[in-house]
This record gives sequence, structure tokens and C-alpha cells, in this order.
Amino acid sequence: MIHNINLRKVLSITSPTLVLNESIIDTNIKLMKEKAEQLNVEFRPHFKTHQSKYISESFKQQGVTGITVSSVKMAEYFSEHGWMDITIAFPINILEIDNLNKLPSETKLNVLVVDEEVVTYLDENIKNSIHAFIELDPSYGRSGMSMDSIPDIQRLKNKIDASSIINFAGFYLHAGHTYKCKGAEEVREVANTVLDKISKLKQHFNSPVCYGDTPSCSVLEDFRDVTQISPGNFVFYDWMQVMIGSCKVEDIALALYCPVVAKYKERNEILIHGGAVHLSKEFLLNDAKTPYYGVIAETKENGWGNVIENCFVKSISQEHGLIACSDDFFDSINIGDLVPILPIHSCLTADLMGSYLNLDGVRIDHLSSYPK
Amino acid sequence: MIHNINLRKVLSITSPTLVLNESIIDTNIKLMKEKAEQLNVEFRPHFKTHQSKYISESFKQQGVTGITVSSVKMAEYFSEHGWMDITIAFPINILEIDNLNKLPSETKLNVLVVDEEVVTYLDENIKNSIHAFIELDPSYGRSGMSMDSIPDIQRLKNKIDASSIINFAGFYLHAGHTYKCKGAEEVREVANTVLDKISKLKQHFNSPVCYGDTPSCSVLEDFRDVTQISPGNFVFYDWMQVMIGSCKVEDIALALYCPVVAKYKERNEILIHGGAVHLSKEFLLNDAKTPYYGVIAETKENGWGNVIENCFVKSISQEHGLIACSDDFFDSINIGDLVPILPIHSCLTADLMGSYLNLDGVRIDHLSSYPK
Repeated sequence: MIHNINLRKVLSITSPTLVLNESIIDTNIKLMKEKAEQLNVEFRPHFKTHQSKYISESFKQQGVTGITVSSVKMAEYFSEHGWMDITIAFPINILEIDNLNKLPSETKLNVLVVDEEVVTYLDENIKNSIHAFIELDPSYGRSGMSMDSIPDIQRLKNKIDASSIINFAGFYLHAGHTYKCKGAEEVREVANTVLDKISKLKQHFNSPVCYGDTPSCSVLEDFRDVTQISPGNFVFYDWMQVMIGSCKVEDIALALYCPVVAKYKERNEILIHGGAVHLSKEFLLNDAKTPYYGVIAETKENGWGNVIENCFVKSISQEHGLIACSDDFFDSINIGDLVPILPIHSCLTADLMGSYLNLDGVRIDHLSSYPK
Repeated sequence: MIHNINLRKVLSITSPTLVLNESIIDTNIKLMKEKAEQLNVEFRPHFKTHQSKYISESFKQQGVTGITVSSVKMAEYFSEHGWMDITIAFPINILEIDNLNKLPSETKLNVLVVDEEVVTYLDENIKNSIHAFIELDPSYGRSGMSMDSIPDIQRLKNKIDASSIINFAGFYLHAGHTYKCKGAEEVREVANTVLDKISKLKQHFNSPVCYGDTPSCSVLEDFRDVTQISPGNFVFYDWMQVMIGSCKVEDIALALYCPVVAKYKERNEILIHGGAVHLSKEFLLNDAKTPYYGVIAETKENGWGNVIENCFVKSISQEHGLIACSDDFFDSINIGDLVPILPIHSCLTADLMGSYLNLDGVRIDHLSSYPK
């Protein structure tokens, strides 16, 4: 009854397991690093996607020294592992001032500010010298000051400049609206409207500009006035990035292996152990505007292959996942098989799983194995 | 600048924290236990919602001895804590046979089966006596055999009866489609069509029937031919259950406290640290069919109160949450405040957070602090 799947034997997978292909990871890092060098921007990768000390080593080996994280806890975690130049790409949370003050004084710490009151608070309460980016909103509508009012930006910059302990680091922008794009051309268009805004800003401020987001960084061939890039997702990519046009299926570096527990011939569906607590509830809409939660990849001798057409995770609850199958795929699968699923959003799947296995069966750490 | 919020001082919350009101939990357990007694069904609560040894003690104190879980790992976790009668309410995953065999032999273990091949596998490979429910699908369409073909059900039961090590436990049904209901009356209607099916089944099989799902168990006043109930979510409830009609706002036993990091007057929005890795991406649609990811509760001296009108979590990314505010609420909030958010789906939020604090500041365990 049980298929002779080589990978399962090697890895002894019995329950939902997030498997990494490290060779793809290394290629993804290498290509982005080379691109940054060629285009003359500093590469400060965002570590919120992998959240792993082990994976951070691959960046170190490729010469990366400055990194980006999205919480103080993540900064602590990577600081413990020897990272000495960290940007916390989140408007500073003043309640965590004690945690910031406990970070090693030799760490070059960069934070984001959007508010004068917070700059005052930081000036009065931070113990070691700190670097502050002003976060600007490139019309994404999530966080950051409006880019339209130069006087407001200037006022906040003056406030920072007046502090003897806070150093102005430049501007930080996240163009999250590229995630709504379909195709590389559309990403380029959205990204270029942001780059236009940055060029306009440069007429007033001759300061560093850090720009992140995997779609832009993957497809742009010119960063113009940007001086640093901080993409995160590209380390793994995922199905959403394929749909956006940031990458190809073969660039996806992780798959969630899920055991098949039941088959329902009358509806051509297979039930897997693998649900919202493994994949996350992130979804995309298919052509019929119906949500789906992951796609199915071919099983190969040592890893996974291309996606299988007309097969997708059609619904998930806490631990259950239901795969809508093509006839061929349904017939090829047995109870006890493992199905590799390419997640919609790798950052969230990794955060939920709390660890990885590489293809040699080595367990790899993730910060979220600790309580938040 | 920082509001003098009593709770924050007591609990020293500085980052997103899931806070429990244990007195509400105790009331929720007590009411469901009493209902089960009055309606003459065995109460076998599902522990997938809280996943906490500490919280399981509250059930023990109220006389509960048999429990329900959704994975072998969860069975191991609660078995370690002395629970001796456990139903794993998931079609058995044959890859985990070694884990099942490692559970203490004195544990009364109940599993779900839907397939003859799996019964054969279990018969040949399980070491200690085990109890098997046949899972039936009450037209929810997720898992379980169709209830329409009595001969098929009989055949599977015969297979179980022929085994000397597998004991037939009865039937297990999860009516997850009650989650689509709006209002208690609609839940009763859906639940009663399932109870009708169960009564029809009873004409053929005089066997125990276990029925779970919080909406049904919360609103039904008669379980008719059901002999066990296994609701899980009711221990905490959440905003989804309020919308379904299972409970009132004051029955919700947990809130995610999130720090305010920025205010955007031009769009009446406040930015919190609290995103998809804390709340989950579970959403509901408002009247305008726009998704939202949580509602905001009033802050009270020692806990939280009612929901604040016209305020909701309008978008989330990995760590960011954006709250759309009424004018009054916007003006009342300062950077550095903590905002209590009632999650859409408490099971997923608890699983993501990996631990709780009670109102006395005691840290409470959750299984998901371990890698999955």
C-alpha cells in the first residue's frame, strides 16, 4: 500500500514536515548578491522569511554583513549568532526600549521612525548610539510618512539630527503593493513609480535609501537612486512569487511534505495531514475566483519537481487539508504516501512549522520554536 | 505619552501577547459540562484549541476524563500529562504507527478510520488494543465515509469486528458546515439535518456516536441519538463564534494585546505590532464584503471589555497590523498603548502564539512552542 518514496525513507518523515533544498537557497542568495553588486547597491537581506541561524550562515559565506529583521526578538536571535549590523525594519516599539538597550553595545543597530514623539523618547531613553531610518510610505498604505510633504520629512530629520545619540541613517521604503501585481512587467511599472518618488526625494535629501520587497528586487534591472536593498522572501520564494512573476517554479526552495490519510473517489479528493497550522491560511484565487492554499509538486528521487496540473489544496482547516486532484494524480497516490506541497507564502509556512529538514535529513532551526 | 494601562503594568507586556481570562474559561467549561450532563451525553472536549497542559487541568477539576485531540503529537503531549483516555479525531496516519505503539499501553486510545486497507494495516501493526471510530461525513465534505451507503459502512465495521486487537468504538462526525451559519437558528437547522442522519443510522447500528463542533454544541438543546460530544473552540470562543451565534462577546476568554507603534491621522489608522504570525490570516467579511482580521475591545482595569464600534483590523502582513479606527478611538490611543484584539479564530491564534499569559502574569504552556 505504501509507495516506495525514496525521500521519505531518507528523511523518515511521518507527519507534516517542511523540507528545504539548500542548493536552491544558495543559488537564490548568490544571484541576488551578484545583482546587488552589479547594480551598485548594498545587499542587506531581510531574515524574517527564514528566521534561521543555520540559513543565515549561507549569507555570511557569501559575504553579507548587514541584515534586516522585523522584530526586536529577531534582532536578539541573530545578534546572539554574531550578526553585528542589524536593521529592525519596523517602526520602533517604545515598550521594547529595555530589550533594545540590552543588545550588545558593539552591534550597529538601525531602527525605523515615523514620529517626532518617538524620536524624543528614543533620545531620552536609548543607552548606546543608534541609527534611525525615516520610514516613508511609497503609496502602499501600511506604514511610513507620506512622501508628499517634504517639510514634514525635514522636520523629523531635524529632530534626529538634533540628537547626540541618534544618527540619521537615511530612508526606508517597503513597496508591498507589488504583491498585487501579475507578471514582471506590472511589477516593474509599480516599482518604477516608487523609484520616481525616490528620485524626487533625492532632490531634497542626499541620503541613503533602503528599498525592499522581493518582487521589485527580483525583476528590476536598475535601482536608480536606491542605495540598499532588503528583500527577504527570495531566499525561498513560493507559489505567490511565481504568480507575481518574481521567479520560476524551480526557484522555490521549500516544500511541505504531507502524509495522505484518506482518498475520496466520489469527489476525486485526497485528505492529507497538513492544514492551517502548517501552511497558514494564505490563499490565492484561481481563474474561477475560488481560493486555493497550495499547489502540488511532483515527487522526485531526491526532492520535488514541477507542479502537477489541475491539482491544488482546495480547503484547509486546523490540521486537515483537502487536495482536489486530476484523475491521473488521484490514481497515482496511495494512503501513506507523502505529497510535496508548494506553499502560497513561504514566510508564514516557515513561521508556523518552527523548523526545517534539509534533503540530508538534518534538522534546521527557526526562531518560532520559541513562544512569541 | 504612554497611557497608564494597569494591565500592561501587571503583565509587563512589551510585544504581542495572548492574554487569557481564566474565569471565563472556567465558566465556559462548566456550562458545557453541565449541558452534557443534563442532555445525557458524554463530554469529551477537544483539546486542539488550547493545546495546553495547564488549561487541561481545569477540565480535570471539573471531572472530565476522556479527551479528544487532532494529532498523534497532541496525544503524546497530553498522555505525558496523565490523560489516559484519548480520541485522536483524525483519520489514522499509518506513517505514525511507531508513535502510536509508543504511547503508554494503559492509555485507552481511540482512532478514526475510513478505509478498509487502513484497518488491515492497523490490525497487523498495532501492538496494544485500540478502539476505532468509523468517521462519517455529515455532508460537510471534508473527511469521513458517506452516510448514504449503509452496506459500505457495514463492510468497514465487519472488518473492524473481525480484528482481535481493534475494538469498534462507534461513529464520529464533525459538522464543520455549521461554521458557515449566521445566527443560532441557522446552526440549529444545519445541526438538526445531521441529527436526522444520525437517527437514520441508528436504525442500522446501535453504536455510540460522537459529534463535535462548537456551534452545534453551543446552541442545541437536544442531542437526540448522539452519545458523546467533543467541542473544542468553546473553551475560548472567538469573534467568529459570536458572528455564528454560538456565544456572546463576554464569553470570549482571550485577547491578543498589541503595542501601538504609529498613528496615521490622514487615514484614521493605527499601526500595531501584531500580524499574520500572531493572529493568523483568518478573516471574516464585513457588510461591504471587505475582509477584516480581528475586532478591538475596550481596555479595562483588569482585562478587556466590549468591542469598540467601527474599529477593526483592516489588514495584516507578517508582523504589521493596521487598525481602522473611529474618530473617538483614534484620538484616545497613544503610541506605546496596548490594544486588546479579539481574534477571528482563537485556535489558530493560540497555535501561532505558542504560549499565553493569564491576568496574574503567569506564563501558560502551549504545545506549539515545540517544532511541528
